[in-house]
Amino acid sequence: MAHLTFNSYGKTRVRLLQVLRDRNRDEVVELSVKILLQGDFDDSYQTGNNSAVLPTDTMKNTVYVIARQKPVESIESFALDLGGHFLKRVRNISNVIVEIKQTPWSHISEHNGAFVQSARERRVTRAQLSRSNISIESGIRYLQILKTRHSAFTGFMKDEYTTLPEARDRLLGTVLAANWTYSDQALDFNRLHKEIRSRLLEVFAAHDSFSVQHTLYAMGEAVLATFNSVREIALTMPNKHCLLADLSRFGLDNPNQVFIPTDEPSGHIEARLTR
Amino acid sequence: MAHLTFNSYGKTRVRLLQVLRDRNRDEVVELSVKILLQGDFDDSYQTGNNSAVLPTDTMKNTVYVIARQKPVESIESFALDLGGHFLKRVRNISNVIVEIKQTPWSHISEHNGAFVQSARERRVTRAQLSRSNISIESGIRYLQILKTRHSAFTGFMKDEYTTLPEARDRLLGTVLAANWTYSDQALDFNRLHKEIRSRLLEVFAAHDSFSVQHTLYAMGEAVLATFNSVREIALTMPNKHCLLADLSRFGLDNPNQVFIPTDEPSGHIEARLTR
Amino acid sequence: MAHLTFNSYGKTRVRLLQVLRDRNRDEVVELSVKILLQGDFDDSYQTGNNSAVLPTDTMKNTVYVIARQKPVESIESFALDLGGHFLKRVRNISNVIVEIKQTPWSHISEHNGAFVQSARERRVTRAQLSRSNISIESGIRYLQILKTRHSAFTGFMKDEYTTLPEARDRLLGTVLAANWTYSDQALDFNRLHKEIRSRLLEVFAAHDSFSVQHTLYAMGEAVLATFNSVREIALTMPNKHCLLADLSRFGLDNPNQVFIPTDEPSGHIEARLTR
Amino acid sequence: MAHLTFNSYGKTRVRLLQVLRDRNRDEVVELSVKILLQGDFDDSYQTGNNSAVLPTDTMKNTVYVIARQKPVESIESFALDLGGHFLKRVRNISNVIVEIKQTPWSHISEHNGAFVQSARERRVTRAQLSRSNISIESGIRYLQILKTRHSAFTGFMKDEYTTLPEARDRLLGTVLAANWTYSDQALDFNRLHKEIRSRLLEVFAAHDSFSVQHTLYAMGEAVLATFNSVREIALTMPNKHCLLADLSRFGLDNPNQVFIPTDEPSGHIEARLTR
Repeated sequence: MAHLTFNSYGKTRVRLLQVLRDRNRDEVVELSVKILLQGDFDDSYQTGNNSAVLPTDTMKNTVYVIARQKPVESIESFALDLGGHFLKRVRNISNVIVEIKQTPWSHISEHNGAFVQSARERRVTRAQLSRSNISIESGIRYLQILKTRHSAFTGFMKDEYTTLPEARDRLLGTVLAANWTYSDQALDFNRLHKEIRSRLLEVFAAHDSFSVQHTLYAMGEAVLATFNSVREIALTMPNKHCLLADLSRFGLDNPNQVFIPTDEPSGHIEARLTR
Repeated sequence: MAHLTFNSYGKTRVRLLQVLRDRNRDEVVELSVKILLQGDFDDSYQTGNNSAVLPTDTMKNTVYVIARQKPVESIESFALDLGGHFLKRVRNISNVIVEIKQTPWSHISEHNGAFVQSARERRVTRAQLSRSNISIESGIRYLQILKTRHSAFTGFMKDEYTTLPEARDRLLGTVLAANWTYSDQALDFNRLHKEIRSRLLEVFAAHDSFSVQHTLYAMGEAVLATFNSVREIALTMPNKHCLLADLSRFGLDNPNQVFIPTDEPSGHIEARLTR
Repeated sequence: MAHLTFNSYGKTRVRLLQVLRDRNRDEVVELSVKILLQGDFDDSYQTGNNSAVLPTDTMKNTVYVIARQKPVESIESFALDLGGHFLKRVRNISNVIVEIKQTPWSHISEHNGAFVQSARERRVTRAQLSRSNISIESGIRYLQILKTRHSAFTGFMKDEYTTLPEARDRLLGTVLAANWTYSDQALDFNRLHKEIRSRLLEVFAAHDSFSVQHTLYAMGEAVLATFNSVREIALTMPNKHCLLADLSRFGLDNPNQVFIPTDEPSGHIEARLTR
Repeated sequence: MAHLTFNSYGKTRVRLLQVLRDRNRDEVVELSVKILLQGDFDDSYQTGNNSAVLPTDTMKNTVYVIARQKPVESIESFALDLGGHFLKRVRNISNVIVEIKQTPWSHISEHNGAFVQSARERRVTRAQLSRSNISIESGIRYLQILKTRHSAFTGFMKDEYTTLPEARDRLLGTVLAANWTYSDQALDFNRLHKEIRSRLLEVFAAHDSFSVQHTLYAMGEAVLATFNSVREIALTMPNKHCLLADLSRFGLDNPNQVFIPTDEPSGHIEARLTR
């Protein structure tokens, strides 16, 4: 008989749109929720005994019930509410993981009750709750950013397959994914998200970049330096290359003006920083 | 032998990113370009004689050359420049179609040379040039909008398969696609795009909606009423349903607060309006 | 007041999976259905009077009802059943369009009741029914095919922006989309689909290609020559370029062996053929 | 100053299509390659000193060079060749990870040099090489499978939010992702891939399923029991629900025939098994 070294089950892509109507103007919160339970479920795998298995359909129902009972103030607080519920409810589990992705909606000018989706960017969180511990990791996905100045890549290692020219002035574009770990569960998560996002953008914009690695580090370091409630931060910054078009074949110069953006292949740069 | 009743060839997804550096601050224009030639190319199909076929690879090169020679001021002017070039260049063609999709980039706060992609929304244009005529159709794609008030759907036709309840107060969400035809080629396309987009959003927000059709019509009518340079407008507004979660099974009410957004199936509403 | 020059509404992405259990072995039919009604719906647009509007939700329900009453034997017959139903049901319409896309499932070896999805390819149909006429157009989507021999592109038009070298022996890859119009409604659509697909593949494989256009024409011509029940055929064959890797920089030759496949930009070749 | 606790960089989505021409018939191998280097690169992050950084562009070039020198016999052998190259080449690294995804191509009938892409399914591998160790994990992605018989889900835990009815005879569909670890590097990887895939399909088809977990376990156990060279196996089987359409509202029964397939929400079941 085989041995189970890991198991996890739950529901993914539970979509929720909540209208918060008890304010000056309606607010809209749109989420996609993933709930995973981990623990001793060996029996269900090995004998098909489902008596300890709460159906994933029930997890879905619970998302809507909890949202009605405790409206979503922040994705972090909602993840903790959901996680706490399942930890209490299902005896066999040692861990609950709740991941939430939020779609941004903004008011259309001064109207109450009319919204436009304002970015492809998503705000995310991941709460992990065990019997003895809670951790909250929040972040950003799909934040597309670009520098047209102050980005170089020179002095790199060269071998016989290296054809890349040194670049003192190149374009640097990326689709930022950031995850940071909060040191506490009683924080103003909405304010922190906004401020950390701003800090990341500011450093990206102002940095005199010697490489993606160099800028990634500066961004992470700035967040750790500014926000005491952030314990560590992981950044992924794929290098979405913009190639300078070679127009010399047509008798034209190209002083860093005309580029060919490409999606593949792309560089991949990833690091995690702590204090 | 078979008869060719239609043929079209060209290059799609030619990506261009241009940095406009001759201003106060850098500006970034990112485009995906499609060029199609139509005309008498029967010989290439029927005998494999390619002597009248300009390679699609050349069309791609030309995009970068023209961008260097005449920087992209608006996607409409660039489409006309490209279309005019090919109409002159390739004798066999009766029609050139140039379609351009623009990715929006905004400055990061006050920085020169740093940008964030500001929406999933795209600005588009389609210029069609023949030997005797030019038409320009511009528009918007993927503009996700939502109303949490002032949307009803009642009094509809019912048959034995109708289970939809009447709704006096429902959510109305859509991903707007709009195309409008300009009556002229010498317009301030950037300003017009911005103003037409605002008008569409305003009417969507303010309208007391009896159906998607009803709101779609009001939006199109307002554009025609406000902008003399728009000759006709086509709007596609899929009904991206947000279903009210049924919480009565759990002893809870749900006064239009907790919804389940769904991507499929979706309604489809489409119409074209002229004066 | 604005004038409606075109309108269309309905339901898209209605998904259906039907198990046909009344045979030797279970069969599975998976469809995505789109239903569009066109006709005199001006009142619903202009005044919000919905009395002639059958809800799109009802169209969705009807798909499941009709599937239960008349199991899906072919997507063409199902499209005709659905179209006929709505034409009778909704007085205001002049046209019904039913589009269906089928996902292919194959049996897992000899098992009854176990299936594997066998391709990304989809079988499609589009039935258009008016008060006086019916047309059926069927086809294929996403059929990815590739030739490693017998494909050339030479003798093409050259201008000052042409850098493409002549190629006597290149790779030719495409994602075929085909649509053909049947001349009748009482045909063995399943058999015809299978045979037309085979014919297209055979000609693609055997053709001595001077260009994509040249091979596209040969494929369409063969279908028209072989199948009397096909009245016309439209083929779209984007040129999904595979670029020969330049290894000379590294002291290596590359006799048509190592290629870089690219998704963008891609060529676009499209034509329609009749007898 | 912040502390780097993890870093990784490299190139992703390097696409390669290789034609193997030295056999009876041409064979085509299409890959997407990801290469990641991990090790002491702190200097590049903290000071922007790139002297130890081999450009990711060089990694891309190297993929094509190695493919020319040692044609791709299996994705596993190619991953080991690439990984070994970079481990030798870049002094600062402690780990190289090479991930490869293969697109399947089949011959069009008996033709030499003509191919059709035969599935959405992908074959994958991940080789991890350190200075002292090598591990190879191979698998399958996007294998869509469905059972129309012998699948139940009963006797599960119920709470006040549980509305799912017990099902003795339901549909079970999933998109299988499998990863297994080989115990050796000198194996016939192509033969093993084929046989393991068959075994997984056979058990899925034949199993009398009490839950997704139950079937997942049976599949993994069978692979471990049959293949000595597999040390452990991880399976992910999202439950892609097919909901029985409720036709009783329309006076019709529905004896497990008409279903509504849905993509979201979906269940998520995942486990890892060893001997």
